[in-house]
Amino acid sequence: MSAARSVTRVGVIGCGYWGPNLIRNFARHDGARVVAVCDAQLERAEKMASWYGVPLVTNNATELIESGSVDLVVVATPSRTHYSLAKQAILAGKHVLVMKPMTTQVDQAEELVDLATRNGVMLAVDHTFVYAAAVRKMRDLVVSGELGDVFYVDSVRINLGVFQSDVNVIWDLAVHDVSIVDYVLGGVSPTEVTAVAAAHAGSWAANIAYLTMRYAPDVLAHIHVNWLAPAKIRRTIIGGSRRMVVYDDMHPSEKLLVYDRGVSIAPWSDPEDVYGALVSYRSGDMSAPNLDAREALAVEVDHLLECLATGTPPIADGLAGLRAVKVLEAANLASGTRLSPRANWEGAVDRPALEPIPIDGLAG
Amino acid sequence: MSAARSVTRVGVIGCGYWGPNLIRNFARHDGARVVAVCDAQLERAEKMASWYGVPLVTNNATELIESGSVDLVVVATPSRTHYSLAKQAILAGKHVLVMKPMTTQVDQAEELVDLATRNGVMLAVDHTFVYAAAVRKMRDLVVSGELGDVFYVDSVRINLGVFQSDVNVIWDLAVHDVSIVDYVLGGVSPTEVTAVAAAHAGSWAANIAYLTMRYAPDVLAHIHVNWLAPAKIRRTIIGGSRRMVVYDDMHPSEKLLVYDRGVSIAPWSDPEDVYGALVSYRSGDMSAPNLDAREALAVEVDHLLECLATGTPPIADGLAGLRAVKVLEAANLASGTRLSPRANWEGAVDRPALEPIPIDGLAG
Amino acid sequence: MSAARSVTRVGVIGCGYWGPNLIRNFARHDGARVVAVCDAQLERAEKMASWYGVPLVTNNATELIESGSVDLVVVATPSRTHYSLAKQAILAGKHVLVMKPMTTQVDQAEELVDLATRNGVMLAVDHTFVYAAAVRKMRDLVVSGELGDVFYVDSVRINLGVFQSDVNVIWDLAVHDVSIVDYVLGGVSPTEVTAVAAAHAGSWAANIAYLTMRYAPDVLAHIHVNWLAPAKIRRTIIGGSRRMVVYDDMHPSEKLLVYDRGVSIAPWSDPEDVYGALVSYRSGDMSAPNLDAREALAVEVDHLLECLATGTPPIADGLAGLRAVKVLEAANLASGTRLSPRANWEGAVDRPALEPIPIDGLAG
Amino acid sequence: MSAARSVTRVGVIGCGYWGPNLIRNFARHDGARVVAVCDAQLERAEKMASWYGVPLVTNNATELIESGSVDLVVVATPSRTHYSLAKQAILAGKHVLVMKPMTTQVDQAEELVDLATRNGVMLAVDHTFVYAAAVRKMRDLVVSGELGDVFYVDSVRINLGVFQSDVNVIWDLAVHDVSIVDYVLGGVSPTEVTAVAAAHAGSWAANIAYLTMRYAPDVLAHIHVNWLAPAKIRRTIIGGSRRMVVYDDMHPSEKLLVYDRGVSIAPWSDPEDVYGALVSYRSGDMSAPNLDAREALAVEVDHLLECLATGTPPIADGLAGLRAVKVLEAANLASGTRLSPRANWEGAVDRPALEPIPIDGLAG
Repeated sequence: MSAARSVTRVGVIGCGYWGPNLIRNFARHDGARVVAVCDAQLERAEKMASWYGVPLVTNNATELIESGSVDLVVVATPSRTHYSLAKQAILAGKHVLVMKPMTTQVDQAEELVDLATRNGVMLAVDHTFVYAAAVRKMRDLVVSGELGDVFYVDSVRINLGVFQSDVNVIWDLAVHDVSIVDYVLGGVSPTEVTAVAAAHAGSWAANIAYLTMRYAPDVLAHIHVNWLAPAKIRRTIIGGSRRMVVYDDMHPSEKLLVYDRGVSIAPWSDPEDVYGALVSYRSGDMSAPNLDAREALAVEVDHLLECLATGTPPIADGLAGLRAVKVLEAANLASGTRLSPRANWEGAVDRPALEPIPIDGLAG
Repeated sequence: MSAARSVTRVGVIGCGYWGPNLIRNFARHDGARVVAVCDAQLERAEKMASWYGVPLVTNNATELIESGSVDLVVVATPSRTHYSLAKQAILAGKHVLVMKPMTTQVDQAEELVDLATRNGVMLAVDHTFVYAAAVRKMRDLVVSGELGDVFYVDSVRINLGVFQSDVNVIWDLAVHDVSIVDYVLGGVSPTEVTAVAAAHAGSWAANIAYLTMRYAPDVLAHIHVNWLAPAKIRRTIIGGSRRMVVYDDMHPSEKLLVYDRGVSIAPWSDPEDVYGALVSYRSGDMSAPNLDAREALAVEVDHLLECLATGTPPIADGLAGLRAVKVLEAANLASGTRLSPRANWEGAVDRPALEPIPIDGLAG
Repeated sequence: MSAARSVTRVGVIGCGYWGPNLIRNFARHDGARVVAVCDAQLERAEKMASWYGVPLVTNNATELIESGSVDLVVVATPSRTHYSLAKQAILAGKHVLVMKPMTTQVDQAEELVDLATRNGVMLAVDHTFVYAAAVRKMRDLVVSGELGDVFYVDSVRINLGVFQSDVNVIWDLAVHDVSIVDYVLGGVSPTEVTAVAAAHAGSWAANIAYLTMRYAPDVLAHIHVNWLAPAKIRRTIIGGSRRMVVYDDMHPSEKLLVYDRGVSIAPWSDPEDVYGALVSYRSGDMSAPNLDAREALAVEVDHLLECLATGTPPIADGLAGLRAVKVLEAANLASGTRLSPRANWEGAVDRPALEPIPIDGLAG
Repeated sequence: MSAARSVTRVGVIGCGYWGPNLIRNFARHDGARVVAVCDAQLERAEKMASWYGVPLVTNNATELIESGSVDLVVVATPSRTHYSLAKQAILAGKHVLVMKPMTTQVDQAEELVDLATRNGVMLAVDHTFVYAAAVRKMRDLVVSGELGDVFYVDSVRINLGVFQSDVNVIWDLAVHDVSIVDYVLGGVSPTEVTAVAAAHAGSWAANIAYLTMRYAPDVLAHIHVNWLAPAKIRRTIIGGSRRMVVYDDMHPSEKLLVYDRGVSIAPWSDPEDVYGALVSYRSGDMSAPNLDAREALAVEVDHLLECLATGTPPIADGLAGLRAVKVLEAANLASGTRLSPRANWEGAVDRPALEPIPIDGLAG
């Protein structure tokens, strides 16, 4: 009998900005081997092949997908191509890891989830941040009840960033926060979503957006994303009835601060007495839990290989990808902004901006 | 006649949280004398009188307003009482400084502006932050064109704060940001306003709110206010076509950072080429201008006394107060939240939440 | 019998920079009344008198000291005058609070301690920081053993500051850190002190200095003070065998961080094996205890009035003042720099710089 | 003639902590090829070889040094072995890049410099920080006179760090600051050096040290290094007569701040008038120049390959390495601490601690 876990053979489509990070992490993992790389600009694939000793190099995605030597296809191409490449890979019987957003339409995401189930392959989405130690710790704090009832989540992700050429800032940046909120709250979908967005500097693409997700009448998540901010801020705050947390991804060491602070209505107070002290305070200690220092992408790669070996679904599976796409599509629709330079958003034109979009509940 | 500037005799109604700061600043100014103090809790007024040697002490606001020795009435009472006290003072022929918000209804603000004009007295509102050195500098940068076209203003004002007993967080905190945005943009009103808000911990009062003000299709101001945040953040970002600024009021020294950064569409780019480089960047130096170190309230008091001496209107006059109240009322209406513990917001009940509220233009 | 604590009658000599803060705190305390103020520039004293309703105003310190209405004399004058004014007050039977440094010579400090004891009056020194909540908490952590063995204290106090006209930066700034270290370590004096210093910009006064205090062969305290630094830093680090703390006085909220971090020699390690892992690490959580928010000066004034009422010695008594002066004198001597514009430091000229100066032990 | 720059063939000895970073940078550079790797633990070398496709793998340094296929030998082994390996490589006619510190004795450093000259090979030392954009900018500001006269340099490099097994913290960390100061000041050696150090937690190795370097009576550089600090601080301040800079290496974006601040003696002031205003201030703007974002190590590798191609000496050449070793040896001697676990520092035992050690001038 073999004691050895088998080695997963990985093919990566897309060697632009993010693909090389995936290639490096799979190539440096004992449980994987990068056996094929593909890019429309062949010389980018060739460079990766020479750096990591990859045997199959091509600019033809179909060749990679249909290669018998590939077990897991990684789709690291521009967003609008995710659906068709992932579908092709699933139909070829391959496991698939798709970059975020999983697709740019809800119906396409639903189709991928369905196809993967029927073909018995793993469908994973690269929601990298759910593998970050601080985010995992936030989920623990919420799920264990340490924060008490969650009142709100406020997430900001802004910097002077690259204007993506094929999607706006909602699909490029807010997808991170949407996936963080989804994971931390345990896969619960919001009941409605609204958003505002704006495009500047002559671009077709909205570069600033504010998303509001409502979970219950007084439970909100709010996301601010911005490609055109002078300073880099990545911060998520969760306010709970017992404790609150601040996750500052830019802090070099203490990324997660837990505040033993809260507020409660004094039980004796008279709500009609405008001079009375209505609210009592608790301002206790703050603490920063010591966190796992591994790179999130390394954790993710390790987790996915483990899932493949054991046949268990990954944390960021197709359903998580679908839930995120539902929120993003609703936000894009609500904001009335263009999704991409080619296809204008159907239906966006005539509807009143800012009306909240209901989200159908999903089985978490 | 005498070349000496006369001494303004000041009466202050309200000796709670903010009133003592005003009393101290007027008392320590050579051009003013605090001659009367009033509070419903007489011992608070008496303490102020003993500290600052004030001759008239009372718990009867009418006695202070009608006193022949008072030139300027400062209204530092809970928000819902601003209108009636300010009106009474104006009708008594007194100059008036009202704390923020000037009133809690637009019609009342309009009436005060009208009455002050007709009675020939100064109506000022305590929008303290417009007298802060960093805010004045931001206005200079906008008005002089140094920032280029303003794309957006993003303002955050959150902390673990006092739940006000008579208004929600929109009227308590967002009024600061609304007045900052109003001043920095030169008194231009937004065309529409929307907001979301939520109340927690059993309170009637919304303690978190997000306001969006639209000035042109792609020019936004967005405000996040929160009484229930674990960390204290007060930060305003302005994105312009030529430069951007970050005003961090919590920084002990460099409160205002000016970034020589921007973004522009490369003129040769093909908007349909999704792989093409559409946007060119400029990431230049950052600088922090040296700012006047005086306390904003001291600047304000000095400015108001100068205005009284010269008969010129103050920066934060009744019209500025009215413009702010218009935005706050629209935001409160849009959010569907309660304004105060007593009077529910009429009309809030049946309207769909989040629909933007149009603002009628004002002569800036 | 009377339940009322008697009111202490306070006379303040010196109404320049720091004196007004003391006057304000004594004047606003129920247990004190400021009955006399004195300044060589009479108009400064007169302003204080008019602000706080002080009956006796003078530019003659002797008049204040000998006034029958004064119980406690506060000496808030330039450092070189502390000794003679404090001595005069003690001899007149008055309790005395002297600003830091208590004196500028060890023999003078010893004389004051001796005189106060013999005359049965309180001698207190304004080591304000030992009354700061973060410093009191640091002492608790050391004394309770929570930090384990103290390995080092590192303290930095730098900014673009006022060049004092009568003492150098050692006596002006390092006195704060020396008093903090003294208090936190429980009043233990170092066995030796050394220092380097330099004077710039044509001034006679050293504006930068580094002090090293040695307590045991491997227990150090190090202080960096600087009037000519572009940024303001006030930070003290204590490294202990079990825990470490960082006290950042510039942080607006979390001034004290306690790190559950340490290091220990792996017991199995071979000290001669240069490749072996000699040291094992522990990197646990960080926490920020919630601290008393009162102003240190208010705590000090309250404490001193309580001490006078109960006849107990204050935390910062004459002996604490003396211990600090011993360290400062040794540091000044070791650095070979001038103490003041008038009197050069006798003995500094011919000695080799940097040789450590032994400190005679004091009964803590 | 050939337009192509030839490819430098690199052999790296030492595949522990830092070696892999050098291997990666040389392997990814078009002008170099890593042709040999060596480590006493062969499996570490084998891993590098498999990752980067290196043909020669060995645990025998001599084999690598004498291989005909190697042009440049990179010595990335523990400090005490630098001298012998570098000497062997030079005598074999190879160019050499030695990690910091170049050697652990001055005489050895002098011998290497001499040997390299006589054998006509490049001797470079890996003072990585002199290739960092912020450090290069600091040097520009000093050399161009923008800072005016340099008054002091203050450098702090502390964290909870690895206790090196073969040298103390002076040789491990202070070497960075010594090389930064050397480069920024233009290669001028201090006239004298002193230091204090202490060892804790049962280790033989000093884990905290303070170094003082004197350049002129009132020009100081001071370095604080610490392996046992709870927070990570890497900050260098330079005070000049016209401007000052703060280099904070932990800041994610604005690492270098230039303050237009200074101080000067008012020409009219009377140095004997202790009440007079002796010093006038200038507190102008602060700015953060936009810096080259490349990794310092990549800049260094590129620079070294260019130097080899053109036959010019590198910025951090053998003389720079020697100057650093002179300061470190003097500091270690002055502090009386042990240099290494094996060889105690000869002469350290009997000398009085803290006496400054004179440095013989070097031709910069």
